[in-house]
Amino acid sequence: MGGDVGPQVAIEGAALALRELRHSSFLFHGREAEITPILDNFPDLKKVSRVLHCDNVISMEEKPSQALRKGRGNSSMWMALQSVKDGEADVVISGGNTGALMAMATFCLRPMEGISRPAIAAIWPTLRADIIVLDVGATIGGDAKQLVDFSILGAALARALFDMEAPSIGLLNVGTEDMKGHEEVREAAAMLTSGSGAGFTYHGFVEGDDIGKGTVDVIVTEGFTGNIALKTAEGTARFISTLMKDALTAGPMSRLGALLALPALRRMRQRIDPSAINGGPLLGLNGIVVKSHGGADARGFGNAIRIAVELARSDYLAKVGHSLNRLTAVLEQPPASTPDAAMETSQ
Amino acid sequence: MGGDVGPQVAIEGAALALRELRHSSFLFHGREAEITPILDNFPDLKKVSRVLHCDNVISMEEKPSQALRKGRGNSSMWMALQSVKDGEADVVISGGNTGALMAMATFCLRPMEGISRPAIAAIWPTLRADIIVLDVGATIGGDAKQLVDFSILGAALARALFDMEAPSIGLLNVGTEDMKGHEEVREAAAMLTSGSGAGFTYHGFVEGDDIGKGTVDVIVTEGFTGNIALKTAEGTARFISTLMKDALTAGPMSRLGALLALPALRRMRQRIDPSAINGGPLLGLNGIVVKSHGGADARGFGNAIRIAVELARSDYLAKVGHSLNRLTAVLEQPPASTPDAAMETSQ
Repeated sequence: MGGDVGPQVAIEGAALALRELRHSSFLFHGREAEITPILDNFPDLKKVSRVLHCDNVISMEEKPSQALRKGRGNSSMWMALQSVKDGEADVVISGGNTGALMAMATFCLRPMEGISRPAIAAIWPTLRADIIVLDVGATIGGDAKQLVDFSILGAALARALFDMEAPSIGLLNVGTEDMKGHEEVREAAAMLTSGSGAGFTYHGFVEGDDIGKGTVDVIVTEGFTGNIALKTAEGTARFISTLMKDALTAGPMSRLGALLALPALRRMRQRIDPSAINGGPLLGLNGIVVKSHGGADARGFGNAIRIAVELARSDYLAKVGHSLNRLTAVLEQPPASTPDAAMETSQ
Repeated sequence: MGGDVGPQVAIEGAALALRELRHSSFLFHGREAEITPILDNFPDLKKVSRVLHCDNVISMEEKPSQALRKGRGNSSMWMALQSVKDGEADVVISGGNTGALMAMATFCLRPMEGISRPAIAAIWPTLRADIIVLDVGATIGGDAKQLVDFSILGAALARALFDMEAPSIGLLNVGTEDMKGHEEVREAAAMLTSGSGAGFTYHGFVEGDDIGKGTVDVIVTEGFTGNIALKTAEGTARFISTLMKDALTAGPMSRLGALLALPALRRMRQRIDPSAINGGPLLGLNGIVVKSHGGADARGFGNAIRIAVELARSDYLAKVGHSLNRLTAVLEQPPASTPDAAMETSQ
């Protein structure tokens, strides 16, 4: 029921996703009277769908605390999460209120053992390849342990989505030298250095421009900075695209030029098209939850569904659990003595 | 002596700036044997310049603490700052090590009365007009009082550079609602709401994409987030420019198209040219210091000089002092009783 335009986008998105994901079936949670007439337009989808009526809908404006009070246990958002908890659904996708979804998902599905706070990941196009940036807004602040948790969650996501063995991880900072940044990020760096090899390779600190370069596979930061980085990048992309559009429509020669270059410009546009990269997994919960952007179109929503299904198929949750255990074991080991230290002791 | 290529850029930049700033004169602090041969190529500049020899030069790699130990009192960077302190120069411009410059400037020129920590400002091109974003890297973290200080410093900079009466100020946050963000930013919002009108208009919270939109004249945040936002934007701009270049050189039709649109594309490029917006003022010190990007070319260095001179001419330092006094007076007033409250008291 969520998003800027309601169920139309979710249903049309599911119809698009179904073309690729042939053996999937869908549960639509929300107001039957609004959902069914739209679903009637997609007979193939209708055959594999059930509508589960729920009158209580969380609006885009509600605060997380209000949403919890109003919708815990009996809203369409909660019911969708509950269907994953009960094993009726493998994944849940929502275009609704992000803060409410985060709060409800945390209450309904509970954080995974060993994870204190969940995170939202963004799949980010770069000069090299798509990379993962997290947290982009689930948390505000966070200690070293949380940054390490996010690293594990992000690495497992990269392994699942990009099919890689040991993704490289960078901690977002204001410089690459060891002494840069605040205590939390330096302490996290020490922990990741010890843990490097346990399902990821720790690269070191990275700076803001390393995101666009794609220097590493996973970039980790707390949610305040991550959210501002994500939105600053969106704003910059929009600014430059607007300048470019203005330039290519300024006068008849430019317009003719743009026409000739149109196919190449279209291909370029696709690479930074928000629909093509829509879908922010909520990580660290006992269940797969993907947030679709409130303003996404049907193709964008379909992409969020595709990401959720990929996570389920790649056994993401088991991989995270395994990684957490490995890292915990490594970090709990007493630091290995160097030969020199051992010699000093023996003398 | 600083920057990626040393004195060549600074001297050539000064020669470019001199064409516009006809009554200026220059002091070059550094190794005479390196400076003089370059200066000989610019006879007009040489006539209004003095070279002040100093052998001790701070490298780009030194940590601020090392730089202070090594260069306090006797390095070319320190001597340049000292020349402002002694009134020999009105402004100082450096392309050197940012951390070292910040540390030395703070020691040499001292923070202005009422300002606890200085900030670095960026002049940021947006869809609407250039705006100011600070702090982009002088600080890590910071309390509400510091965010308010930065607001005053940024507003005075906007008044000086953009010739406006009451610039609008936004606090960078993860949402625009009152309850968003951490305590520091919410507390700063309360203080700025009380102070709005004292030389600036407080707009409220802004998000990362408001930077590119140019929603307000001055965007304020602490240096960790500000630095990451700045570099993320640089990375995004480079990413999209590269995609665009690739698109416009992909095949003969695109290349012909690009050729036809070239003049318009060049004009566009100028608007986001790092040289055209180079020059980050260090704010909150008893003296005007402008940092030129280490990778800036002569045109970029010339622009940093131009910004410094504009600040001196517009009496920036006096304006900041005046604003601080006005805001302090407003914030120290007891909260005005509303008529209702007064009535309740009188009953």
